[in-house]
Amino acid sequence: MKIALDAMGGDFGPRVNVEGALWATQQPGLSVVLVGDQKKIQKELHKTRFSSRAIEVVHASETIEMHERATESLRSKKESSMRVALEFLKNNDVDAVVSAGHTGAFMASALMVLKRLPTIERPAIAGCIPTLKGSCVMLDLGANVDCRASHLVQFATMGALYSKSVEKKENPLVGLLSNGAEDSKGTDVLRQAHQILKDKNLNYIGFIESKDMLKGKVDVVVCDGFIGNIFLKTAEGLVSAIFSMMRQEFQKRFFTKLAAGLFYFIFKDTLYSFGRRLDYAEYGSAPLLGLNGVVQVCHGRSSSRAIKNALWTAQKSVESHFLEKLKGELESGQVA
Amino acid sequence: MKIALDAMGGDFGPRVNVEGALWATQQPGLSVVLVGDQKKIQKELHKTRFSSRAIEVVHASETIEMHERATESLRSKKESSMRVALEFLKNNDVDAVVSAGHTGAFMASALMVLKRLPTIERPAIAGCIPTLKGSCVMLDLGANVDCRASHLVQFATMGALYSKSVEKKENPLVGLLSNGAEDSKGTDVLRQAHQILKDKNLNYIGFIESKDMLKGKVDVVVCDGFIGNIFLKTAEGLVSAIFSMMRQEFQKRFFTKLAAGLFYFIFKDTLYSFGRRLDYAEYGSAPLLGLNGVVQVCHGRSSSRAIKNALWTAQKSVESHFLEKLKGELESGQVA
Repeated sequence: MKIALDAMGGDFGPRVNVEGALWATQQPGLSVVLVGDQKKIQKELHKTRFSSRAIEVVHASETIEMHERATESLRSKKESSMRVALEFLKNNDVDAVVSAGHTGAFMASALMVLKRLPTIERPAIAGCIPTLKGSCVMLDLGANVDCRASHLVQFATMGALYSKSVEKKENPLVGLLSNGAEDSKGTDVLRQAHQILKDKNLNYIGFIESKDMLKGKVDVVVCDGFIGNIFLKTAEGLVSAIFSMMRQEFQKRFFTKLAAGLFYFIFKDTLYSFGRRLDYAEYGSAPLLGLNGVVQVCHGRSSSRAIKNALWTAQKSVESHFLEKLKGELESGQVA
Repeated sequence: MKIALDAMGGDFGPRVNVEGALWATQQPGLSVVLVGDQKKIQKELHKTRFSSRAIEVVHASETIEMHERATESLRSKKESSMRVALEFLKNNDVDAVVSAGHTGAFMASALMVLKRLPTIERPAIAGCIPTLKGSCVMLDLGANVDCRASHLVQFATMGALYSKSVEKKENPLVGLLSNGAEDSKGTDVLRQAHQILKDKNLNYIGFIESKDMLKGKVDVVVCDGFIGNIFLKTAEGLVSAIFSMMRQEFQKRFFTKLAAGLFYFIFKDTLYSFGRRLDYAEYGSAPLLGLNGVVQVCHGRSSSRAIKNALWTAQKSVESHFLEKLKGELESGQVA
């Protein structure tokens, strides 16, 4: 399997991408095509101690910078590293594309180059959210601020199939994020989607509150991109606030400083990893569902570990034949 | 000052209300009118060891149960304890009303009896959310699921005045909860409200993300009741998830059990109180703003401590002359 990586993407440029790619190719059967400024990539490759036969380099003369406007860069930079990588995928030269570059530009490029799947109106960012029982797939995490009921229904179908194929959950439970579990709750759009989902061939349990989602009551949670974003940032902000509180606590209580210090040392990692996993991108990457191709979006701040994880998640997605299965379902009319 | 308390409200009936009232009246200058089934109230009063001259009992023959439909109970139970308490407030026999009863019925009754303030289209539930720098006022926490831009603008003005008068913050910073700080973020409704708020006589800083709100960057956060509910339940769910993770951690690591146990013992309270403060109602109560009267909503699960806090918050609100100031601003046309 071959995955194209936008080697210029992310806040740290080629370094973390090259390191992540080398790390990822330790997995048998995976090779990575590094797309970007050949000189810079080669320089980074020489710097590392490792080498890998599973790495290829493909030159792309342009790079979309993080501060550029998505629409402008799309028009003006037709030879950008992310664009070249996506064209490779379109031509079946690679099986998937991963990028930690400008998220807006990457999503827009992917939509333009790969196109939407038939009957899917909007692609969605899906994330793997940690719960007390493991994890659940949440979508949309930010691609679509305003959603109609039909969009939410399509997200539900794609999320359920992703959970089943990639996360290997049998008959995944699907919920619609709302302000209460009763049928009377939700906004007008949510209640419309709720009615449609009841009749779908899904294991749909109805409205769910975020606290029950964190307990692990469902495998797939559907919401619009605005709510998804509020959820993620609230979770991220709270974990960080609790860290600060813990630090304050040590300063207050001298008599138990040792115990506190020890516990902090132990517990930090668990809490930190919980917090990190909440940030969809640092955890690895988030698949962009609804496009005709396997595409993974990474956060700009991604480390080499995050890039490695993103490549492995993309590999898992390709191996699961998720995209083929989704196309099959769409053709058989199982999706709204 | 006299505050009417719906003595029948809440999951625990008259007991916690009577205890909370006795506790609250230890504050000089506060007397409480217990409204409800006189026999039951007297029985609870006899049970407690304390007595107080600052307690009055007023009979109300009916009680709205927690499972009833708000609209039906409004029609059928005109002698309910919450209704009688609200009529007292309307007739200026008391200065405020507190109830831990059926939230929907209480809000509807308050709206019917007290009426909205002129130019305020929708009353909002305001909550005091803990932040790393203290707290901020957040509204709406659930009274209005779908909001127009004008509603959000009115919430901002009421919230700012509440923060200034009751929380004693000078020139409070106001933010609109969104999916990013840039002007281009938000939904259509949010961007409309954003434009209007820029021209208002408020210390408005623009869009704010929930993680920055938790850091304490603003004093007032405005959102619709759906988002407010998602925020609260995500926060509540996360704090509870982190508790569970901590417990799991002790079971895993035997060699540091003592340290972990000690730390848990110390830290539990901080975390618990943070979590409890996030639940607007357990923390005390949430003021319902926009009505012609000082009204505090409590959670059904309120303890006597929560009832006591609610009575004190209502007292603080009355003493601050918040309502008179708000009416003044509305009359002078300072509110949309």
